[in-house]
Amino acid sequence: MSRKVFAEFLGSLLLAALVIGSGIAAQRLSDDVGLRLLENAAATAAGLYVLILVFGPVSGAHFNPVVSIVDAAFGGLTWRAVAAYVPAQVAGCVSGAVLANAMFDLAPVSISTTHRATAAHGLSEVVATLGLVLVIFALVRSGRSAMAPAAVGAYIGAAYWFTSSTSFANPAITVGRTFSDTFAGIAPASVLPFVMAQLAGAAVAVLVLRVLYPLAAPDRRPDPEAAPIP
Amino acid sequence: MSRKVFAEFLGSLLLAALVIGSGIAAQRLSDDVGLRLLENAAATAAGLYVLILVFGPVSGAHFNPVVSIVDAAFGGLTWRAVAAYVPAQVAGCVSGAVLANAMFDLAPVSISTTHRATAAHGLSEVVATLGLVLVIFALVRSGRSAMAPAAVGAYIGAAYWFTSSTSFANPAITVGRTFSDTFAGIAPASVLPFVMAQLAGAAVAVLVLRVLYPLAAPDRRPDPEAAPIP
Amino acid sequence: MSRKVFAEFLGSLLLAALVIGSGIAAQRLSDDVGLRLLENAAATAAGLYVLILVFGPVSGAHFNPVVSIVDAAFGGLTWRAVAAYVPAQVAGCVSGAVLANAMFDLAPVSISTTHRATAAHGLSEVVATLGLVLVIFALVRSGRSAMAPAAVGAYIGAAYWFTSSTSFANPAITVGRTFSDTFAGIAPASVLPFVMAQLAGAAVAVLVLRVLYPLAAPDRRPDPEAAPIP
Amino acid sequence: MSRKVFAEFLGSLLLAALVIGSGIAAQRLSDDVGLRLLENAAATAAGLYVLILVFGPVSGAHFNPVVSIVDAAFGGLTWRAVAAYVPAQVAGCVSGAVLANAMFDLAPVSISTTHRATAAHGLSEVVATLGLVLVIFALVRSGRSAMAPAAVGAYIGAAYWFTSSTSFANPAITVGRTFSDTFAGIAPASVLPFVMAQLAGAAVAVLVLRVLYPLAAPDRRPDPEAAPIP
Repeated sequence: MSRKVFAEFLGSLLLAALVIGSGIAAQRLSDDVGLRLLENAAATAAGLYVLILVFGPVSGAHFNPVVSIVDAAFGGLTWRAVAAYVPAQVAGCVSGAVLANAMFDLAPVSISTTHRATAAHGLSEVVATLGLVLVIFALVRSGRSAMAPAAVGAYIGAAYWFTSSTSFANPAITVGRTFSDTFAGIAPASVLPFVMAQLAGAAVAVLVLRVLYPLAAPDRRPDPEAAPIP
Repeated sequence: MSRKVFAEFLGSLLLAALVIGSGIAAQRLSDDVGLRLLENAAATAAGLYVLILVFGPVSGAHFNPVVSIVDAAFGGLTWRAVAAYVPAQVAGCVSGAVLANAMFDLAPVSISTTHRATAAHGLSEVVATLGLVLVIFALVRSGRSAMAPAAVGAYIGAAYWFTSSTSFANPAITVGRTFSDTFAGIAPASVLPFVMAQLAGAAVAVLVLRVLYPLAAPDRRPDPEAAPIP
Repeated sequence: MSRKVFAEFLGSLLLAALVIGSGIAAQRLSDDVGLRLLENAAATAAGLYVLILVFGPVSGAHFNPVVSIVDAAFGGLTWRAVAAYVPAQVAGCVSGAVLANAMFDLAPVSISTTHRATAAHGLSEVVATLGLVLVIFALVRSGRSAMAPAAVGAYIGAAYWFTSSTSFANPAITVGRTFSDTFAGIAPASVLPFVMAQLAGAAVAVLVLRVLYPLAAPDRRPDPEAAPIP
Repeated sequence: MSRKVFAEFLGSLLLAALVIGSGIAAQRLSDDVGLRLLENAAATAAGLYVLILVFGPVSGAHFNPVVSIVDAAFGGLTWRAVAAYVPAQVAGCVSGAVLANAMFDLAPVSISTTHRATAAHGLSEVVATLGLVLVIFALVRSGRSAMAPAAVGAYIGAAYWFTSSTSFANPAITVGRTFSDTFAGIAPASVLPFVMAQLAGAAVAVLVLRVLYPLAAPDRRPDPEAAPIP
């Protein structure tokens, strides 16, 4: 396993542990559902900012198949790298769910029974993923990648609130969150509709980005880590 | 529709979806009204920071007729551009209200019945808009526009709290928020007094800025997007 | 009134409106006292960050007699400037209290009946002010003044919590907060003990700073506004 | 006592006062346990960011034996310096607990009766410390130390939530927190298991860092304070 793929695996693992672990803590400690979501969102935003800082220079810190696919579509990543990243992201998110369960003394695996597949949630996932892809690649295509850690963290923290689905916006974390029957969980039957919506949102984002940022100005800060992965 | 006008439309749409959507979620999930406002304010602050990052290099990321008008008054935008920006901002905010309603499985349009026009709210809107214009153009006139995304997000998050009107400070979002009879809504009859107060606040801000920052030092970071819109 | 003194007046006015206004909103909208303080602290931290950004290049954005006095003690400000700044800061904070009352439809002036003078609160004010002076001048003396807006905002937000006095740390705002009998108010009889404790904390901070940062490395970013005030 | 050791002592003292003081305030003012943790976490994150800004250029702002030990393992600190830092960190954290108690009018010392030693908490401390060491040295080894204050503050704020132990991740603060029988306290009998878990997490982190950032690229911004301590 290459260094970059290891970074995607470990980063995705820590991301899932962050999202699910903070959801479990919120559920245990607070009664008001909105307060639980506020706690979950604040922890996720702050932690995601840090994870992108840590893993960004190594692998790009995608932790998300949609981001890797769009990056490849824009020519920033080879399709062969995508084929190595995506399984690492999914395996990482599943492992992170198990770790979160263990840190809170729960059974290592419990399949979520929270059904989330409605039309309103589907629309929410389209919008949430559109926004996420817009943020990342607007920064990349205007030479401001250094702002991505803070921007992506803040975006996800806000998107937990302005969508009814609480903004998964990531197929890997969607799969991972089926493995914990807790606050942040999602039932397996809801995964496919969510992933379809996420891919649709990403497709719209690519079209919008070609209008807003037509020239793919590569980030001016040269990245010594940017060699293609084996 | 030019690229810049499209950016103002889409950014305003997402801003309204953010403000209204997070208000609906807060209202549904929390009982305490202060907690709802905290959730709404935190989501708005984080999301607004991101929206300005995304759209700033394209159109300036005004999303607000008052900001476009003041920019023109200071010579940073042509009046013809203002005439193209303002309808896009209003149409965007109305569309964003519809999107927020749809994401939360509500009727696409429901006219707000929350009357907000009192003298105290009017004074609040004067102060809120004065502060917003002060923040933006103090940064612009001292060559620190790069700090505007974080500063404007933080300002609005704070202004939700230190004013009794929860700081609309934006005629376009004021109109948009009439289209959702939820936490963040405003009754149509309250719109005109709010907009008048916002314009008054902006006028005071212009006078204050001419004292505080008498020389319009253009931002030292040249902006390749700064060509006049067609 | 010079431009710098005007900036200190207006910034102090907005600071007091921010602190007191968000306190009134929190008191009205939330039941849990801790939640009220969280709302008050979050709004204050975000708003203070913005106010220092806006007024910093003009006057230094002290808004606080203790900061002006320490600045003079370290040679960054003339004592004559201190004599002009301090009355502007106090008048600004009193005016801001009146504005906050008016924005929330309260009597323009209501003298606070919240007595806060205990030994534990006095110790808290010593520590709070020591920390504030440490933050500001550690940054100034190591050429990192550009980080002061975010650092001071974050510091005050934290200090609301780790002290029992909720960290006034500022004689001008202490006086201003006597003029609003609301959540953030303080009874006039508590003002003198608070101010004495604040001055003591500042004195300790000066000693600590002489050890930690013995060479007063002036900020490397030259400030065109740094001419002495008339 | 050298200037650097004094900085570690004073910074650790203020860190413990911050963590414990905000915990006492949260416990007194809020009923919901999750809300208490949110208040404690927000204050800690903001305050830690500031403390690292203040003391970083003097001593590195470790405040944590694990960080000093890893720094020495990577060659950034002499072992003799570690031997001077660690006692200062522990003494500082104990003093800070006493100060927090005093600021809230409690007995200067009260030994905590909160037993926290379970397998799930031990695993949590391994993960929490692994994450902390990863954040700090990923930044150091890629020349981005200037981002450490914000990143470490955000990390700890998130880690309060995604672990069941609320993330001590620091032997010195673990000892200090035995001296306050309040919200943030820990019973003496739980200290040894916590410290063992923290050391284990740090060891794993060193292995991971050697994979992710194999070349110890020293921070490109030269630090005039980097002379070895006497």
